[in-house]
Amino acid sequence: MPGNTFGTALRITTFGESHGAALGVVIDGLESNFPIDLDHLALQMARRRPGGNPLGTKRQEPDSVEVLSGMFEGKTTGAPLAIIIKNTNQRSGDYHDISRLYRPGHADHTWQQKFGIRDWRGGGRSSGRETAARLAAGAIAMQILEKKGIHIQAYTISIGNILAHKRDYDEIACNPVSAPDAEAAILMEQLIERMREEQDSVGGVIECRITGLPSGLGEPVFDKADALLAHAILSIGATKGIEFGDGFACASRRGSENNDQMDADGFLTNHAGGINGGITNGDTVVFRTAVKPTSSIGMQQKTVDMEGNERTIVVEGRHDPCICVRIIPVVEAMSAITLLSLWYEQHGR
Amino acid sequence: MPGNTFGTALRITTFGESHGAALGVVIDGLESNFPIDLDHLALQMARRRPGGNPLGTKRQEPDSVEVLSGMFEGKTTGAPLAIIIKNTNQRSGDYHDISRLYRPGHADHTWQQKFGIRDWRGGGRSSGRETAARLAAGAIAMQILEKKGIHIQAYTISIGNILAHKRDYDEIACNPVSAPDAEAAILMEQLIERMREEQDSVGGVIECRITGLPSGLGEPVFDKADALLAHAILSIGATKGIEFGDGFACASRRGSENNDQMDADGFLTNHAGGINGGITNGDTVVFRTAVKPTSSIGMQQKTVDMEGNERTIVVEGRHDPCICVRIIPVVEAMSAITLLSLWYEQHGR
Amino acid sequence: MPGNTFGTALRITTFGESHGAALGVVIDGLESNFPIDLDHLALQMARRRPGGNPLGTKRQEPDSVEVLSGMFEGKTTGAPLAIIIKNTNQRSGDYHDISRLYRPGHADHTWQQKFGIRDWRGGGRSSGRETAARLAAGAIAMQILEKKGIHIQAYTISIGNILAHKRDYDEIACNPVSAPDAEAAILMEQLIERMREEQDSVGGVIECRITGLPSGLGEPVFDKADALLAHAILSIGATKGIEFGDGFACASRRGSENNDQMDADGFLTNHAGGINGGITNGDTVVFRTAVKPTSSIGMQQKTVDMEGNERTIVVEGRHDPCICVRIIPVVEAMSAITLLSLWYEQHGR
Amino acid sequence: MPGNTFGTALRITTFGESHGAALGVVIDGLESNFPIDLDHLALQMARRRPGGNPLGTKRQEPDSVEVLSGMFEGKTTGAPLAIIIKNTNQRSGDYHDISRLYRPGHADHTWQQKFGIRDWRGGGRSSGRETAARLAAGAIAMQILEKKGIHIQAYTISIGNILAHKRDYDEIACNPVSAPDAEAAILMEQLIERMREEQDSVGGVIECRITGLPSGLGEPVFDKADALLAHAILSIGATKGIEFGDGFACASRRGSENNDQMDADGFLTNHAGGINGGITNGDTVVFRTAVKPTSSIGMQQKTVDMEGNERTIVVEGRHDPCICVRIIPVVEAMSAITLLSLWYEQHGR
Repeated sequence: MPGNTFGTALRITTFGESHGAALGVVIDGLESNFPIDLDHLALQMARRRPGGNPLGTKRQEPDSVEVLSGMFEGKTTGAPLAIIIKNTNQRSGDYHDISRLYRPGHADHTWQQKFGIRDWRGGGRSSGRETAARLAAGAIAMQILEKKGIHIQAYTISIGNILAHKRDYDEIACNPVSAPDAEAAILMEQLIERMREEQDSVGGVIECRITGLPSGLGEPVFDKADALLAHAILSIGATKGIEFGDGFACASRRGSENNDQMDADGFLTNHAGGINGGITNGDTVVFRTAVKPTSSIGMQQKTVDMEGNERTIVVEGRHDPCICVRIIPVVEAMSAITLLSLWYEQHGR
Repeated sequence: MPGNTFGTALRITTFGESHGAALGVVIDGLESNFPIDLDHLALQMARRRPGGNPLGTKRQEPDSVEVLSGMFEGKTTGAPLAIIIKNTNQRSGDYHDISRLYRPGHADHTWQQKFGIRDWRGGGRSSGRETAARLAAGAIAMQILEKKGIHIQAYTISIGNILAHKRDYDEIACNPVSAPDAEAAILMEQLIERMREEQDSVGGVIECRITGLPSGLGEPVFDKADALLAHAILSIGATKGIEFGDGFACASRRGSENNDQMDADGFLTNHAGGINGGITNGDTVVFRTAVKPTSSIGMQQKTVDMEGNERTIVVEGRHDPCICVRIIPVVEAMSAITLLSLWYEQHGR
Repeated sequence: MPGNTFGTALRITTFGESHGAALGVVIDGLESNFPIDLDHLALQMARRRPGGNPLGTKRQEPDSVEVLSGMFEGKTTGAPLAIIIKNTNQRSGDYHDISRLYRPGHADHTWQQKFGIRDWRGGGRSSGRETAARLAAGAIAMQILEKKGIHIQAYTISIGNILAHKRDYDEIACNPVSAPDAEAAILMEQLIERMREEQDSVGGVIECRITGLPSGLGEPVFDKADALLAHAILSIGATKGIEFGDGFACASRRGSENNDQMDADGFLTNHAGGINGGITNGDTVVFRTAVKPTSSIGMQQKTVDMEGNERTIVVEGRHDPCICVRIIPVVEAMSAITLLSLWYEQHGR
Repeated sequence: MPGNTFGTALRITTFGESHGAALGVVIDGLESNFPIDLDHLALQMARRRPGGNPLGTKRQEPDSVEVLSGMFEGKTTGAPLAIIIKNTNQRSGDYHDISRLYRPGHADHTWQQKFGIRDWRGGGRSSGRETAARLAAGAIAMQILEKKGIHIQAYTISIGNILAHKRDYDEIACNPVSAPDAEAAILMEQLIERMREEQDSVGGVIECRITGLPSGLGEPVFDKADALLAHAILSIGATKGIEFGDGFACASRRGSENNDQMDADGFLTNHAGGINGGITNGDTVVFRTAVKPTSSIGMQQKTVDMEGNERTIVVEGRHDPCICVRIIPVVEAMSAITLLSLWYEQHGR
């Protein structure tokens, strides 16, 4: 099966390249009669759009969306909702010089190996820009989940070695790195700026909390809620790992410490991260994902060209020194798509 | 879509409960004319079978397999290969007393919430015993991958706070915890024994290495090799996280440290873990998964019954104080199924 | 995708060969807490079982089913329900002489071309015996549909040139050809007996009526109710066509004759066969399928062997001179599976 | 699963309404490095476009396509190819008066029942206009199949009671009804014109021949080549039946007449229509599909409104008195998509 479709009861199919005519998504399986809030959709797109964050790439894209189908008099009809986002600010010339070189950390090499051809302009389909389409679909899913009382929020908990020591959720919207810790946020921001100056980049960790989920979502034994979320999140470029609840930390624990005991009011702890046996348990779902440092850096690196000759490369262009912040809405989007699909599986549309 | 089918070009469907008549798997999409090695299959089953490891459960199951279809004169025919493993040593009486209680850390509560009914005998379908069917399918997939030069090996790199400090792959088969470090293995073994004595349990981390993979496997943008492996591995009960290559560690690194540069001989490093942009790059694929401490412990815990009354519970029965070692072959099996499916996607059968 | 799985919200996976150890099916996606009627299941199996009809094959198979999983205290649990039917009365020796010849009308040739190997014993997986597994799954689906007020009935409307001129539904169970016309039934029976004497075979047409269906089932634009039923029915061996409502006859009609007009009580006619735009309209769904004459005949025919040499063949063995009657329950079964899947899509489980 | 995606190894997802902004398709799974012939694509679109045939609707649509992604320097890249066709000549006002009435023969009623909302402008997504997206995808698939030596041709063999008595394939392109019989074509044309004058419509039968197919395509037991073609063809609006090879006629035959015997040169006859046991046998695949008379007619008909009140309706607007001719390229398109998908399943990309 080709790989550009995700989800079951709710299913998205995305397309588009970084420097092609447009990016887009077809969302199939939405409930009918749901009023779409196009302003909210635009707002979500703005969170990720190139040029939208002072710490990010200097490429300017309005990322305005066009809904081509599936909506009638402002509401979903049950027919597939197609959205396109036109590319306007491509500067493909930036890439011409390196069109035959493999950029370290990027998918140039593997894409060429797999397909025998690649659209080298801005990374083509392997560009992070591909996620704009996911974001549009996720915004719709999120609107529907919100109406069901389900809220998804992702935020930065570390950049490089700087960790958020608090979980002050009101703070997240107040700093450009979306961290729940005002002091750490300042240090993170400084680190990112230093990376830009040094033509280098840095990674980080994103945490995501989902509240208001009913128990019962997830389809064991293979399409468990955590397995599907992992699939969804690790399909986002630059992510290198995911953990649920206490995650890797629980590997060093004892069962007596790690089990979430219950009383009449519910679970006493949430080491599991809201999922037991692959099914949501009604508690908050919590996961974290590791984001690698941006592969595009302005420093000289060793590589080869398409003929296998040794070369050096300096990746010019307009890159984010830390991709974490722009991935946050994508993490929320993919979570929303996954969970709405599971919601429909369990409860119908 | 119901959740008991996994894979695309190669597809497995499993069934069966811990104390039901049998567990089983239907493997569809295997290449035809492949000679199945039933001895190897039996050997794989033995690695996970209850009673097969002195550190594990005392339940004794021969876990002998019956091939019901898809094989003719010792070879695959292209028709679905069905395998069943009969249950013989159920002691459902062990569970009767707790049939109306939710065992902490288990899926009793969520399964009941989702389905409104559950087979409480030994955890029913949410039991780890379910993985016997995956193991059988994985053994077949592994035989085929081996013939293509692809080798999968998983092993323990930590139990509780005891870490393997070496990667001595020859050592793995020589100790009961499957660790690549003989000294650490002894300490791990002692820790597990102590947990058994204390009626407690402990978690661990499994690492998996896959060598001999060609570049080009993985179907972006959603069915990336790492996304599918994450789906596969996190669908195994008791796993709480996965990371590829340097994983969470790369979140604190710089791009200049983390990028895998190339020369004419290939990659100079393998921070990425053998996958770029979701496609295998020809280098060794490396991932780690966190395994939580066994939920079944003999200590008294707080819980509720099906009516919501507060109760205490002591989980009797024959449980593994550390499930890590028995999960190792399951990690290999799910990896094999995932990668053979991707192999068929890319190269045909 | 390998082809042994059918359905979406309800999904069946079948396996097994005519002369292998067993046939079987895994049914995934059933609603939980449904009490399975094993007597009804046995009765359905008996309708199709070899040796069960005086007009059919002389092979005797009890076709008793074993439920291996997914049922607890008599009810579905939401876990996959696996059923196997052991083969007991294989006489593979009958086939040895023709193991290297392609039987005309059979899939020997195409199966060999596709897979490079085939289980020639009784046709292996391409045998009509494969449908026993479908029948078991269909019986479960039918029980659930019946409880929802949906009733499926298929019957013979022609054998060779003998047509049923009436639709006397009470008559269907009263004659061995399951025709709704007592007089025609006698002639049909005589024709089949004559075919047996002449070592020849004959085809027929099966009609199927589904009453009690709510409007709204079907998932346009590709998974329309009629498109899925066509997929389901034409996946049954020996079927060569399907038509809905007035079918091919409407091709020679005018719109003014063919449109089903409405008044306050509903549709005035049912030319459409209960489906408009791929969605059930609340009226009776009606379709017909053409069944070819049994390919196995005792007369001498020209063929080639696996090396391409010209040969003649006489197919010995115990064959049905008319396969229609035994396909009737399979048509009902595949309809039930398709419609229950669509029901779950629309209404949840 | 929502229903707007079709195919496995090759997968199309379509979207769009008759009077919405655009129709479109995402084609995923195409082989890479294939040079797309945009002129051929435009030519295919012209065959079906409204206003393109003197016998058809008077709505004028250029149906020019825009390729948004998946093509680089004129070739496929392996990334999803997205195509949109903008709507330009909607006259939604034509429909306003009947926006609350159910047009007989149309899906207005069932769509409303299913979704509780519908885009009534021109039938919305249930309009035949939806097939423009299928046609675009089919044109690409057909180009690839042609390069593999596989040729698909559909044509009219009856309109009303007028039958083509010849199969003169060179004639098909020479008459406006695409019939392989020049004399019959004139009569068919006259019949269609008379229907237009009488504000009525008429149905017909389309036959499709596929030559050059290798043996081995089709995935038994459920995704047989004929079962998938039936699914594909019956998902086209207005089709009411399909038959393969001799189809319904073989139901009245004997096995000795119907079996296709073989000699060293291949099959002596082709009653089966090129498929045995659901797998192509190397001979020409032949099927026929019944097309009902256009539902939109200018005569007065009985119906109800959304509140269930009895009403009469006269469907104004610009309609085809016979939809057959415009469905021909859609039949070819859906066949091409189905067979290329099966080709990739068997041989890889």
